[in-house]
Amino acid sequence: MPRAIVLGGGMVGRVIACELARDYAWDVAVVDAREDSLKAAMAAAARIGVKIRPMAADLSDPGTVKNIASGADMVFGALPSRYGHAALRAVLEAGKNYCDISFMSEEARELDELAKQKGVTAIVDCGVAPGMSNLLAAHASQELERCDELSIMVGGLPKERRWPFEYKAGFAPWDVIEEYTRPSRIVEQGKMVVREALSEPELIDLPGVGTVEAFNTDGLRSIADTLKVPTMREKTLRYPGHIELMRVLRHIGLFSLEAIEVPVAAGTPAPAGHMLAKVRPRDVLAALMFPQWTYQPGEKDLTVMRIEARGVKAGAATTIRWDLYDELDEATGFTSMSRTTAFPAVVVGTMIAAGRLKRPGVAAPEMLGIAPSRDEIVREVLAGLEKRGVRFVKTEIKG
Amino acid sequence: MPRAIVLGGGMVGRVIACELARDYAWDVAVVDAREDSLKAAMAAAARIGVKIRPMAADLSDPGTVKNIASGADMVFGALPSRYGHAALRAVLEAGKNYCDISFMSEEARELDELAKQKGVTAIVDCGVAPGMSNLLAAHASQELERCDELSIMVGGLPKERRWPFEYKAGFAPWDVIEEYTRPSRIVEQGKMVVREALSEPELIDLPGVGTVEAFNTDGLRSIADTLKVPTMREKTLRYPGHIELMRVLRHIGLFSLEAIEVPVAAGTPAPAGHMLAKVRPRDVLAALMFPQWTYQPGEKDLTVMRIEARGVKAGAATTIRWDLYDELDEATGFTSMSRTTAFPAVVVGTMIAAGRLKRPGVAAPEMLGIAPSRDEIVREVLAGLEKRGVRFVKTEIKG
Repeated sequence: MPRAIVLGGGMVGRVIACELARDYAWDVAVVDAREDSLKAAMAAAARIGVKIRPMAADLSDPGTVKNIASGADMVFGALPSRYGHAALRAVLEAGKNYCDISFMSEEARELDELAKQKGVTAIVDCGVAPGMSNLLAAHASQELERCDELSIMVGGLPKERRWPFEYKAGFAPWDVIEEYTRPSRIVEQGKMVVREALSEPELIDLPGVGTVEAFNTDGLRSIADTLKVPTMREKTLRYPGHIELMRVLRHIGLFSLEAIEVPVAAGTPAPAGHMLAKVRPRDVLAALMFPQWTYQPGEKDLTVMRIEARGVKAGAATTIRWDLYDELDEATGFTSMSRTTAFPAVVVGTMIAAGRLKRPGVAAPEMLGIAPSRDEIVREVLAGLEKRGVRFVKTEIKG
Repeated sequence: MPRAIVLGGGMVGRVIACELARDYAWDVAVVDAREDSLKAAMAAAARIGVKIRPMAADLSDPGTVKNIASGADMVFGALPSRYGHAALRAVLEAGKNYCDISFMSEEARELDELAKQKGVTAIVDCGVAPGMSNLLAAHASQELERCDELSIMVGGLPKERRWPFEYKAGFAPWDVIEEYTRPSRIVEQGKMVVREALSEPELIDLPGVGTVEAFNTDGLRSIADTLKVPTMREKTLRYPGHIELMRVLRHIGLFSLEAIEVPVAAGTPAPAGHMLAKVRPRDVLAALMFPQWTYQPGEKDLTVMRIEARGVKAGAATTIRWDLYDELDEATGFTSMSRTTAFPAVVVGTMIAAGRLKRPGVAAPEMLGIAPSRDEIVREVLAGLEKRGVRFVKTEIKG
């Protein structure tokens, strides 16, 4: 029985672990330092009737990661972004194949040489977006004789829309605010250009969701370099109105990380005479607003994504479009965010483990989408997702 | 030459002082503890070519107020609300007539007996709203054979609308947030009922302004008791959309005065180990947002008000409507807020001083609107305002 190690037992890690145990009958250990994460992972496994092993360990320590990885046939990563890069290096040093959805800010490709030396394959950013977005955008661009433009629009949303935000955060709200403030890098006429976060909002209609609003986010990541398409942009989707509210909060200064001085309220352990405290507005906003952005138990989320490649096929202007619509699965209790993020890692990871993606090095999924065997790979990945109810629908639009 | 004392040299006090000196050739002293207020008052007087005397004194001390008032023929009050009640008592104890626009939260009528003992007349809440709103609402209610409903809608707005607030605060922004949080007391079917602040928004079209939005505020003050009309409400006017933003900020918790704990940023003089500070969200919002709500020098404000009395006249359903539209006066530099607030006090105060409103006691302006000589009083007050360019337009609507 192949042994899999899943680094991180959070929302996504526990779903990866459960799926590996259910569908492939692997021996699966899920590793996390937090007792409650391990408990939640065990509860999820019990709910769907599979066995996984909990392992308590501090994954912020690369030595620990290397030791744990050494005992595995295949390693999966679902770590907080700040541990992602060091963990990747540790897994490679252990000489193990890796499939990762940790959203690291560092360049994973720096470790490409190390992976090649060790003769192992690591696919990073292997969730939904980044992840399936890279794979399908790349594949679609290859289907065209000439690809002029790639557009990725993606959002995680609550099914029930509640005033005023009509939004809940499927992942850390801090990262959402980051997305709302970090300038977005897009590619126009072959050049990288920078647009303000929350800029260029546009309304689009998506089947199953209705009208949503798309705005620039800094989400192209590796494809900005790896795909040679003159125009590429990633936009995030929200229900209409959310962006305007976020722009107002930003305008007021509530997203700011620059400390301001405010009076200290009674009960603060400040020495007499120190009547002002420096606080960061974003911390105050977080304390008040983030609880309102938290999914309640059983509250349904959904994931919606549209990938479009525009260009020329058979001599005619053509758009290749991939649409995804997914909801929380009541049978398993898995949220749509965790399903759509975990399943691509599960499918791609098991393909690596089965030796069907032998390609030593560190790569993001678009490399699979431009590989010679890309049609076969995409077919297998989509089939693996379809089996789990995550369905991408392709449309080819002429003209 | 009659001697007038104006307590308070702020935005409104200095306009009262200037008008008294210009139009009535009174000997006017303006009193304030703040050097910059006195300077601004002197500058305003110089700009319009009149002389007023500055007097530095701490008006939070009732003894000082009594001493200063003793030397006057007529006293005007334009004080911060927290000093208003004590100052009123001090002026009455000095045995002087008084006309006041200080927005005190205490009951002015508690001092009615004292005024009667001293044989002096004090008209309080004598600005635009409260002030002209009370006078004209009361007068209109008397013109009807039966008055079923009184409605007062009033707002101070910037002439130029800027995203996202389309609002600037003509008076202390703290008081504006108070207005947005304090439950509003209205009268329905003869009973006082309480509605949430910012509630029951409705769009109305006003000449010269376009579409504005009206929402419940706690502004009936004395007329909730003094006028016996079954339905009475006061609403505040803003450009459409402002209310929604304020509701969102309130929903987030940013108007809250309950302290929350947030991390202390670097540079706070907190002892080591004290990493959290208790701060009140409203203090943080104030530090960030209030500067954005401040009128820039020369920036035009406007005042808009609609008073309606609905009922029966000559046996037919009738609405008596009073409309006000006023803007900053470029000739004097007086803002519309200060004009519309100061001029009623100037006109009514000089009428008191001239002995034409002999009515010992403390009263709000609606008492003038129901007095036997109300037609004459209203005519004289409106003429005094008209002379200064503040024009109320009456419409009588049948049906």
